[in-house]
Amino acid sequence: MDKFHRNERIAVLLKTLCDSPGETFTLGNLADIFGAAKSSVCEDLDVVQNLLSKFEIGYVESISGSLGGVRFIPGYSKNKIKDMLDSVCQELSNTQRILPGGYLYMLDIIYNPKRVSDIGSIFAGCFFKKEIDCVITVETKGIPLAFATAKHLNVPLAIARHNSEATDGPSVNINYLSGSAKKIQTMVLSKRVLKRNSRLLFIDDFMKGGGTAKGIIELAKEFDCEVSGIGVLVETCKPQKKLVNDYVSLVTLNISNEEEEMITVEPSEVWM
Amino acid sequence: MDKFHRNERIAVLLKTLCDSPGETFTLGNLADIFGAAKSSVCEDLDVVQNLLSKFEIGYVESISGSLGGVRFIPGYSKNKIKDMLDSVCQELSNTQRILPGGYLYMLDIIYNPKRVSDIGSIFAGCFFKKEIDCVITVETKGIPLAFATAKHLNVPLAIARHNSEATDGPSVNINYLSGSAKKIQTMVLSKRVLKRNSRLLFIDDFMKGGGTAKGIIELAKEFDCEVSGIGVLVETCKPQKKLVNDYVSLVTLNISNEEEEMITVEPSEVWM
Repeated sequence: MDKFHRNERIAVLLKTLCDSPGETFTLGNLADIFGAAKSSVCEDLDVVQNLLSKFEIGYVESISGSLGGVRFIPGYSKNKIKDMLDSVCQELSNTQRILPGGYLYMLDIIYNPKRVSDIGSIFAGCFFKKEIDCVITVETKGIPLAFATAKHLNVPLAIARHNSEATDGPSVNINYLSGSAKKIQTMVLSKRVLKRNSRLLFIDDFMKGGGTAKGIIELAKEFDCEVSGIGVLVETCKPQKKLVNDYVSLVTLNISNEEEEMITVEPSEVWM
Repeated sequence: MDKFHRNERIAVLLKTLCDSPGETFTLGNLADIFGAAKSSVCEDLDVVQNLLSKFEIGYVESISGSLGGVRFIPGYSKNKIKDMLDSVCQELSNTQRILPGGYLYMLDIIYNPKRVSDIGSIFAGCFFKKEIDCVITVETKGIPLAFATAKHLNVPLAIARHNSEATDGPSVNINYLSGSAKKIQTMVLSKRVLKRNSRLLFIDDFMKGGGTAKGIIELAKEFDCEVSGIGVLVETCKPQKKLVNDYVSLVTLNISNEEEEMITVEPSEVWM
């Protein structure tokens, strides 16, 4: 086993904890990794805690008892989130982005790894306490966001599709009504993907009527699972009443007059 | 500006560089961030370099000249890659995974954020020197791998779809022949996603005949772009001759007798 200097221990400790959010490391584990005394590791953890709070990106939680240890809990401060959302809103508030049907072009944002990773971290902070077992989304545009959220929660991802594939194995289909277009659609999920009684977090890029979210709730029932959280990057102002009640949106979009191209994008109320 | 102790500087430096692979930080930048002298930052960088080589996850490159600075280049050592691939192969070598048509169930692996992030890091190391501008994939199963690779290369992601969507804006369609099933398929990509003359890296989970890769090369031409690299997690032994020549696969799958369920999965030749 390599011996580490204190400088090195702290650096590796910060990276190790942040790279495995929610994973419990016992002091014994860490002492072994670094070939150091538990008391030294404790001092190192204080430095890491202090750094995390300086950068407002989360904190180290101590779990006492025989199964105890420490783990990193992701969670940006409200101020930091507000700043990030302001910057997203500024980028989105561009009339050039308006597409026919009240949609907004945002592939440049939802496919940008840094942005997406930050947003995933916000969602992870919002839903960490819900003890999520799996993040779920429907193909395609929400996948990077859902993946980044799953990474920050350190849980697997499930992707429902519109058609079954040879690589899924046996799968379950449901039909659902899209909230805005009132069109019947199909959602398919491989049977092997979800364990019974899992707590799911549904993540998507966009919510208009909420039909997809409602579809996911129905799909979850078929697997004896529960949707314990719903997070979307953008929700539209209208319709104000969605098909689901309990969800977190990061920003709210209002295209007030499509012809005149009036658009506002603001952080959703909960962040103000 | 906060002042940082040396311990703290090294920890934040390691995290900052690793979180933004390929991004150049000048010594001046770093000295400002930490409120430290450039000479101190240089010493800190030596410690970080040493740590990266201990963990075999990449290195810090110095760029001289007036635009110079330092940047993190991802890249696991060959030994580390071999270990990771051995573990993937072990997980995949399970007859329970065999699906009709010579496919393999692997959603549990390609939707597992930690695994996927490691694999993305391997691809990033393979293709870093190709100066990739954008990672491209086709929906759906390759998206997490492509996203993780894009994150480690610090470039945007592009996702070609099978049908155009209202949220794409104007898009370009091509038809292509799938290599194994000889079926005509369509690929669509939003016009706004790719800049002309971009160097693309195509990432996918599975290659049988190579038809999808060939399709992506055709699609790239329509955008005046070039496919500078192709990386797949799993390639099949048969057909031995693919529709593309120049690609990197991580592991090779051989289902020799579907009825008797004989299966071998091994690291591809280049890693042996």
